[in-house]
Amino acid sequence: MKIIKVNLKERTYNIIVGYNILPLFGKAICKLNLGLAAYVITNAKIKNRYAGILTKSLKKCGFEVKFKLIPDTEKSKSLKTAYSVIKDITLFDSQRRIFIIALGGGVVGDLAGFVASLYKRGIAYIQIPTTLLAQVDSSIGGKTAVDLANGKNLVGAFYQPKLVFSDVAVLNTLNSRQKKTGLAEIIKYGIIKDPYLFSYLEKKYNDILALRPDILEFIVSRCSWIKSKIIEQDERETRGIRTVLNFGHTLGHALEAATGYRGYNHGEAVALGMLLASDISTKIGLIRKAVGARIENLIENVGLPTRISKVSLGSIIKAHYRDKKFIGAKNRFVLLGGIGKTKVVKDIPLELIKEVLRSRT
Amino acid sequence: MKIIKVNLKERTYNIIVGYNILPLFGKAICKLNLGLAAYVITNAKIKNRYAGILTKSLKKCGFEVKFKLIPDTEKSKSLKTAYSVIKDITLFDSQRRIFIIALGGGVVGDLAGFVASLYKRGIAYIQIPTTLLAQVDSSIGGKTAVDLANGKNLVGAFYQPKLVFSDVAVLNTLNSRQKKTGLAEIIKYGIIKDPYLFSYLEKKYNDILALRPDILEFIVSRCSWIKSKIIEQDERETRGIRTVLNFGHTLGHALEAATGYRGYNHGEAVALGMLLASDISTKIGLIRKAVGARIENLIENVGLPTRISKVSLGSIIKAHYRDKKFIGAKNRFVLLGGIGKTKVVKDIPLELIKEVLRSRT
Repeated sequence: MKIIKVNLKERTYNIIVGYNILPLFGKAICKLNLGLAAYVITNAKIKNRYAGILTKSLKKCGFEVKFKLIPDTEKSKSLKTAYSVIKDITLFDSQRRIFIIALGGGVVGDLAGFVASLYKRGIAYIQIPTTLLAQVDSSIGGKTAVDLANGKNLVGAFYQPKLVFSDVAVLNTLNSRQKKTGLAEIIKYGIIKDPYLFSYLEKKYNDILALRPDILEFIVSRCSWIKSKIIEQDERETRGIRTVLNFGHTLGHALEAATGYRGYNHGEAVALGMLLASDISTKIGLIRKAVGARIENLIENVGLPTRISKVSLGSIIKAHYRDKKFIGAKNRFVLLGGIGKTKVVKDIPLELIKEVLRSRT
Repeated sequence: MKIIKVNLKERTYNIIVGYNILPLFGKAICKLNLGLAAYVITNAKIKNRYAGILTKSLKKCGFEVKFKLIPDTEKSKSLKTAYSVIKDITLFDSQRRIFIIALGGGVVGDLAGFVASLYKRGIAYIQIPTTLLAQVDSSIGGKTAVDLANGKNLVGAFYQPKLVFSDVAVLNTLNSRQKKTGLAEIIKYGIIKDPYLFSYLEKKYNDILALRPDILEFIVSRCSWIKSKIIEQDERETRGIRTVLNFGHTLGHALEAATGYRGYNHGEAVALGMLLASDISTKIGLIRKAVGARIENLIENVGLPTRISKVSLGSIIKAHYRDKKFIGAKNRFVLLGGIGKTKVVKDIPLELIKEVLRSRT
């Protein structure tokens, strides 16, 4: 078991990573003074798997427990769902002191964190991420949000959890596509910050896909550590430091949006986005071709897409110019100066973007 | 003109108080780097009065301006209104960098701050409070919220503005009841923190009601200063310091709620709540009767209610026990140890609450 401390002054919290640690969850939170009753937001599938073990662990430590199910779809990340959850909480909360547990993947985590940030101007919440993607990325850093019709994550808050509790044993129910989407973000950490991790992945990606417990624990805790160090320096993404986490996400988001969030899942889109950012970096002479080739090889070996097939170039460009990260009318890319080195470049010419997109179709 | 600095590290901002300063607003914000386009949330009445002067002042400094009207009623403090405002913002915001201006009283300020806290996980906003109550209280300190069917301010955020800009000249359109409701909160500051202010009010309350510019500027800036010093020590109401601002609000909220927010307005309910808290303080021997009498005299002289007439004792008690500030099943009152001295007391017996309520009916 590994404990990573995220140092954010009065918002400091731990990330606990281990194998088969869910039965210890109640004990891990009993001294955090979060409240008396746990309101667990999750979906039906996950509840069926883990409600028993979680409830037992919480009750042993004297907590009341209530489960709230939301549909297992991105559509649950809406103001409407948030509102219905909050209404349900007000009924449960009368005279209790409650806290929220997000038990699930990114959708559950984003929604539950959002609800926790709003109810009574903020109550405590805990992330128990159950996907590889959520364990290495979305559960950490306090970005909570819901979607609007005209954009993902347009409404939200920076609101840190009181604990992130990652049990890598729960990943054994993930299918191959879910594992790979998590791997895309793991590869991202290697590319932007950690040449050692990148080399490790080149050798061990198969062990991750095979869910070897020791390797998962190492990978999840190392990625959690990398992300938490970035968050510590730039909690609210105002200093240009947290921006590096958007590597691969600028065109990645455009790809997701252009397929109506149905063609590529997040990791697949980010994999392509990383390749495109790497292509741009090569074109403008920031990295040698060999660096780009290493990235492409790893992505290909893992089984993530390296060519764009599900969407037209025009619709990608259109989606790109709607991105919420635009400041004024300028685009901004996180590019590479090598494995482990990033460089933010503004105003990449449209022609260059089109060129790299075209060469990957 | 007075400038009060609210020291909250990276969230530090100024409160500017002056007479007839609205024409200078654009100049006051042009160096704050808030964005390029001002999205002004207000109601129709206020827009008619001030849109011209505000727009001129903003355009002179190169800002684009758009007004968004919301109905002038507490019902506008809803998730539904917030959602419709946010949708409107997404349309206006394409490729711009916008910030929000709350131009109005408490409803506009709470809603606009709430929307600003949520949109893109937080954009800049400014408070231009146009009521005495908003200038001395609700515009300061970053409490934003909307109401739910089963409770006021149940959904919200702590989210600080980038500036509070109080022009006391705009208060000349307030009616007598609106002025008095502001005075109730002003009296509160005297009682909880400032014996000098309290004595000053005993002599000068008529000059405030007559809206004498110099006296208004003094009062609004002194109250802003008192509140900001409290906020600096306890921004998120987690240390028990900000709690003193709830003096008179425990039973005050219950009175408002018991009349369905129609019988008493906020200031009237707080005036009664302060008297009841003072009565309890006397009964349990925290203050002498003469202190309670001074408070009652001032409230009476100002023309605020000193007796409960619009609601039954039973419904007040019922509303009291639904208060969101309850922790566990215990009540918690801010009581007095004298003018300028507060004391938080837990678990005031129901019988004592009933007794003081009865003696004021």
